[in-house]
Amino acid sequence: MTLDMVIYNGPLLTENDNDELIADGLIGIQNGQIVAIEHRSSDEPLPEAGEMIDARGGLILPGLVNTHTHLPMSLFRGLADDLPLETWLNEYIFPAESRHINPETVRVGTLLSAAELLLSGTTTCCDGYFYEEHVAEALTTIGLRAVVGQGVVDFPAPGVPDPTQKIEIAANFVDRYKNRHPLITPSVFCHSPYTCGPDTLKSAKQLATNSDILFQIHAAETPTEAARIPNGQGRSPIGYLHDLGLLDSHTLLVHCVHLSEADIEFIAASGAKVSHNPESNMKLAAGVAPVPSLLTANVVVGLGTDGSASNNNLDLFQEMDTVAKLHKVINQDPTVLDVRRVLKMATIEGARAIGCEDRIGSIEFGKQADIIVVDVRRPHLTPLYNPWSHLVYS
Amino acid sequence: MTLDMVIYNGPLLTENDNDELIADGLIGIQNGQIVAIEHRSSDEPLPEAGEMIDARGGLILPGLVNTHTHLPMSLFRGLADDLPLETWLNEYIFPAESRHINPETVRVGTLLSAAELLLSGTTTCCDGYFYEEHVAEALTTIGLRAVVGQGVVDFPAPGVPDPTQKIEIAANFVDRYKNRHPLITPSVFCHSPYTCGPDTLKSAKQLATNSDILFQIHAAETPTEAARIPNGQGRSPIGYLHDLGLLDSHTLLVHCVHLSEADIEFIAASGAKVSHNPESNMKLAAGVAPVPSLLTANVVVGLGTDGSASNNNLDLFQEMDTVAKLHKVINQDPTVLDVRRVLKMATIEGARAIGCEDRIGSIEFGKQADIIVVDVRRPHLTPLYNPWSHLVYS
Repeated sequence: MTLDMVIYNGPLLTENDNDELIADGLIGIQNGQIVAIEHRSSDEPLPEAGEMIDARGGLILPGLVNTHTHLPMSLFRGLADDLPLETWLNEYIFPAESRHINPETVRVGTLLSAAELLLSGTTTCCDGYFYEEHVAEALTTIGLRAVVGQGVVDFPAPGVPDPTQKIEIAANFVDRYKNRHPLITPSVFCHSPYTCGPDTLKSAKQLATNSDILFQIHAAETPTEAARIPNGQGRSPIGYLHDLGLLDSHTLLVHCVHLSEADIEFIAASGAKVSHNPESNMKLAAGVAPVPSLLTANVVVGLGTDGSASNNNLDLFQEMDTVAKLHKVINQDPTVLDVRRVLKMATIEGARAIGCEDRIGSIEFGKQADIIVVDVRRPHLTPLYNPWSHLVYS
Repeated sequence: MTLDMVIYNGPLLTENDNDELIADGLIGIQNGQIVAIEHRSSDEPLPEAGEMIDARGGLILPGLVNTHTHLPMSLFRGLADDLPLETWLNEYIFPAESRHINPETVRVGTLLSAAELLLSGTTTCCDGYFYEEHVAEALTTIGLRAVVGQGVVDFPAPGVPDPTQKIEIAANFVDRYKNRHPLITPSVFCHSPYTCGPDTLKSAKQLATNSDILFQIHAAETPTEAARIPNGQGRSPIGYLHDLGLLDSHTLLVHCVHLSEADIEFIAASGAKVSHNPESNMKLAAGVAPVPSLLTANVVVGLGTDGSASNNNLDLFQEMDTVAKLHKVINQDPTVLDVRRVLKMATIEGARAIGCEDRIGSIEFGKQADIIVVDVRRPHLTPLYNPWSHLVYS
């Protein structure tokens, strides 16, 4: 059998459950699927394939998974920085969105972000925004894999001038993309517990449950969020979502900066997943999520960048470096979030967070061939003692 | 007059005291010096020059200044990570240094670091290590500007097998490089108040004062440092150095993580400078330096990466991003360390910290032409609203 593609001649970080490193790896690919993973000595013959990729001088690893993006917001990159969150949102981002966001700008912003993601080694993202059918449509033209969530809020939003139609618009979006394109998986994205009332939250979650898809929501991002939940009576955002019955293994909680011990137990017991966005949380001074505690409670935590307006890039390599260092200094412990754990957060744990671990996130037989090769023949990646260390820190 | 070089056609961030941005900048260079800084409309004729650099699509700014490196330590990049500081030093770094550091490895490690620095936009560094004459010698071959400090400690060190000779070796080094090479400025680098006794500290500072050069020292890096100062009687490291008479405007205090208000007053009153190394301090879980308080006290704070073994790269662009975000989240204030301030820390304030502000750090008439052009025609740098924002955050 002639394979479609063979990638060979590099250390292969599988990111499988055994954290296996194959010193001289070879991957065979057929119809976009991984059909062979082998060690190959340099004197062994190569299999026949339509395309041969010699990875010499590179590290072979799964494409990175960005668990939280707002792709069209790359258009607002650097528009406003170093401002209080409310000023930033109300005086810059919301006005810019209401003035400039339309199907065409969504398409252009999505393509710009997709180019940035692919050039920086990310092959899958989990997005949430408005006009999400135009995000999805743009992504089909560029080849990025994505979970794509139509935004839901209780006030007029881009593409949703009448908020009473928000669930219907989301449902139509889900219908349109469910099982229609191999790279696109629809999702529902409620903005937050303070911008969506309890009925909206329950309806959106019901839609997601009925369609067996991911329900995404920003939650517990800032210390003042609890006080802003309508009729939440000061309940913690996570406790409130728990009381509404919204936490289960198909729920992705984005941010989770301000958590009580009870909140962590709710998340762990429900199987809900967490998207951790350290650089955005730092830049907006939101706080530092208790990631070591979440990991101790066996919560799945994936890494995300958030949108380019609050980061200001979509680079998961830089985000890995930041997450590894931030929790060390915050916890006064240089051993937390070691390099192997951090690379998992950006690969297989990220895939688990967005419900794609059966298809991507590690290099394993039968998975999709979402693979990157990182060239390490660079001064800043020389010498090479430990591939994980270079990918995270260098 | 025909100029040696002209750089034109890009927004020019001068980093001068008025923070002037020239939308269409032109710089004339003669004998390595800046002899013209102008606005030039695209229809105006260009001056004659031996070399014309068209910076279209780029931002023109001063070369970055890295105020703290250990250049040869790039050889230990990724050798050991995610370990407690003492384990890391005593079980990995010190044994590796005693086994592998010699004139040849120092030369190779220095060249490797210099290549990394120049490729990432840094044109000046302030280094401290052993065998520093070999660091200096290597740098003369590659064209990086540097303040180069011979290491001083009270125990045997690479190139200083007999500690009684440490001051003499440092003095010989200073003699050899004082006013000998346009890019190399000698300095004395005492490792720390806990590895150098009071007599050593005073002798080393005296040598620096007599030669009118920079005295560098790691100080107040970890919370336990005070207890380790011999006969320091629990005095704070900065207070101890103050009592010894070591603080003045030619002293560079590296790290300054653990400072009392009195310490900040000592630093401010003496005119001593601070090198802030946020990523190294995070990775080793040393803590977060009170940079906003230092800046409020009008202390000069430059940015540094520290050595590659504790970072693990020498990239000041990433360090700028980290410093801007870290202090926001630590101080729960998204307005601290705005992008203009941060770029100054990596340029003119860095130059001030190491005593080179008369020659470099800003693009001004008569200064040395240490200039970089950053290509912003990239997806992750598109669109461009604010050049400072992109340089720091994107």
